[in-house]
Amino acid sequence: MNHHDLALIGFGGVNRALAEIIRDRGEALGHELGFTLRVVAITDLRFGSLMQPDGIDLDHVLNLPSSASFEGMPGGAAIPNNDHVIRQSSADIIVEATFTNPVDGEPAISHVRAALESGKSVTTTNKGPVAIARAALNRLADENGVRFEYEGSVMSGTPVLRFGRETMSGLWINAIQGILNGTSNYVLGKMEGGMTLQAAVAEAQELGYAEADPTADIEGSDVQLKVVILANELLGADLTTADVERRGISSLSAADIVQAAAEGKRWKLVGSVTRDEFGRVSGAVEPIALSPDHPLAGISGATNAIAFTTDLLGTVTVSGPGAGRWETAYALLSDIIAIDAHQRALVGAAL
Amino acid sequence: MNHHDLALIGFGGVNRALAEIIRDRGEALGHELGFTLRVVAITDLRFGSLMQPDGIDLDHVLNLPSSASFEGMPGGAAIPNNDHVIRQSSADIIVEATFTNPVDGEPAISHVRAALESGKSVTTTNKGPVAIARAALNRLADENGVRFEYEGSVMSGTPVLRFGRETMSGLWINAIQGILNGTSNYVLGKMEGGMTLQAAVAEAQELGYAEADPTADIEGSDVQLKVVILANELLGADLTTADVERRGISSLSAADIVQAAAEGKRWKLVGSVTRDEFGRVSGAVEPIALSPDHPLAGISGATNAIAFTTDLLGTVTVSGPGAGRWETAYALLSDIIAIDAHQRALVGAAL
Repeated sequence: MNHHDLALIGFGGVNRALAEIIRDRGEALGHELGFTLRVVAITDLRFGSLMQPDGIDLDHVLNLPSSASFEGMPGGAAIPNNDHVIRQSSADIIVEATFTNPVDGEPAISHVRAALESGKSVTTTNKGPVAIARAALNRLADENGVRFEYEGSVMSGTPVLRFGRETMSGLWINAIQGILNGTSNYVLGKMEGGMTLQAAVAEAQELGYAEADPTADIEGSDVQLKVVILANELLGADLTTADVERRGISSLSAADIVQAAAEGKRWKLVGSVTRDEFGRVSGAVEPIALSPDHPLAGISGATNAIAFTTDLLGTVTVSGPGAGRWETAYALLSDIIAIDAHQRALVGAAL
Repeated sequence: MNHHDLALIGFGGVNRALAEIIRDRGEALGHELGFTLRVVAITDLRFGSLMQPDGIDLDHVLNLPSSASFEGMPGGAAIPNNDHVIRQSSADIIVEATFTNPVDGEPAISHVRAALESGKSVTTTNKGPVAIARAALNRLADENGVRFEYEGSVMSGTPVLRFGRETMSGLWINAIQGILNGTSNYVLGKMEGGMTLQAAVAEAQELGYAEADPTADIEGSDVQLKVVILANELLGADLTTADVERRGISSLSAADIVQAAAEGKRWKLVGSVTRDEFGRVSGAVEPIALSPDHPLAGISGATNAIAFTTDLLGTVTVSGPGAGRWETAYALLSDIIAIDAHQRALVGAAL
């Protein structure tokens, strides 16, 4: 049976959920997937860093009080020296789930680069490094014979990137339309019920859906990053965020929404990628009033969805969760499964 | 570059569409997928059989008048000797798309068995052999070191089997609900508009959606076969059609449908698979009045969809076409891609 040693960079909700999955069902997963998992390093802003090449007791670290520190534990230190841990740990897979700035993709881009340079594969849930530096990081992974995987960068664990790239292989995807932000979709649903934008945002914040600063959700810059990722990953484009026109839902009035409802239509914040007749790929983020027969018209609340327009199948739509700690932890697990499969293929070819 | 020789068993709409795809974009697909395709044998009830180990001129056979025969062509014969062609042709992949009886799965089961016994992989679009003999045929494929693939047996080319089995690997699927028959879904939509069942069926027949005998669509036995396939393939069950309770849409009255619409609900013919708390898997086919927030409520007309209930992701739904010659031909192509990938993995491991 194969085996992988993991280093968890960041020990917040998502990586803690992954640690719980490994603790609680690692053995069952091993039987199903043909490999075992062990965590040999963890870094975190609060706890510091911990390197134990023989495997960290996950139950112990998961039950530490939030005021605790890794300092004093064998292999522990008060400071989360991410770069050192990524380069020096015995892990073969780095699990990157830090809080990262979506504008410059840091510190995640540096983490990914350090991992790939030191011959370790990476799975990340951060959109930033994928939207900003995907091509360069994929090249670096190839040069080092390892993998850079990022299923969770779009729609958390709902496997839309792998679906578009692998499950639909042999099809030509000519267009993509997606509802890719749960907060704005929730807010639009509330506005259909008569609430103002401001009241709906406040309610989403109370429920924990929306950030304290909801600008990235409401004004579409979160979706803009995802459109860049989809265009480059699935339609072979080379777009940057500046290439993607963006209009958020704050441009909609309550009257717009009432009028659309009267016509049987529903406003949605749609991220779209289109290939024109000359093969040029463009992207856009904008509110669109969708007819009820549009495959995205029924996508409500926190659910996200992508409709792929293909040559042979017409439109195929995948909907599922777009956020959540378990859902995003599954994205990491699905990347680890892909890294394992790729290593087996390499080993097979090299034998 | 890898290469595959195909034998097409049946030369009706679906296999003709596959032949057109190979003729028109075989080269482009080769660059994308890393293998080339050639058709070296065709059998058909009308045309007879044709075996040309150096490759059949697809443009020529696609343009034959429907009254023509393969007799007189090099390697041609008036009689479609399927078993002989399957066993003797130089093809490494048999593409099975005959008209097959869903009750006993013949002649497709015999075709698949002959192919696997003679060391050839198989792709089929027929539900019968998969619902009736899947486990035995998969064992026979394993024993002969080849593959039995059948993505098109559920939802034509929309890759729901591969999605559930591979794209969602590592998840535990606890339940499946699907709208798996376009004819009954079209008829229900018309009944919502006030039409009687009989009138809606007649309209579907005029439009070519429904068969001359629509019983299998309307009474749910088509969906029943698909439920068996989904239960056995994705939830590890060992069900037969007799295990799956079945009730069709003829049990619904116009009043039922009007009343549901008044409550904001929509009747759909739902095929479902459920794993209970003891791990037992059961299946059913029945009309259900779905609330508007159910992921299948918005699936209209000829579109099909499956909602997977999983442990870590909750509900993930895939919708797309459930029929059509191009769509079903893509199912065959996706199986050929899978067979090629499996052969590469075997070669890699054996080197």
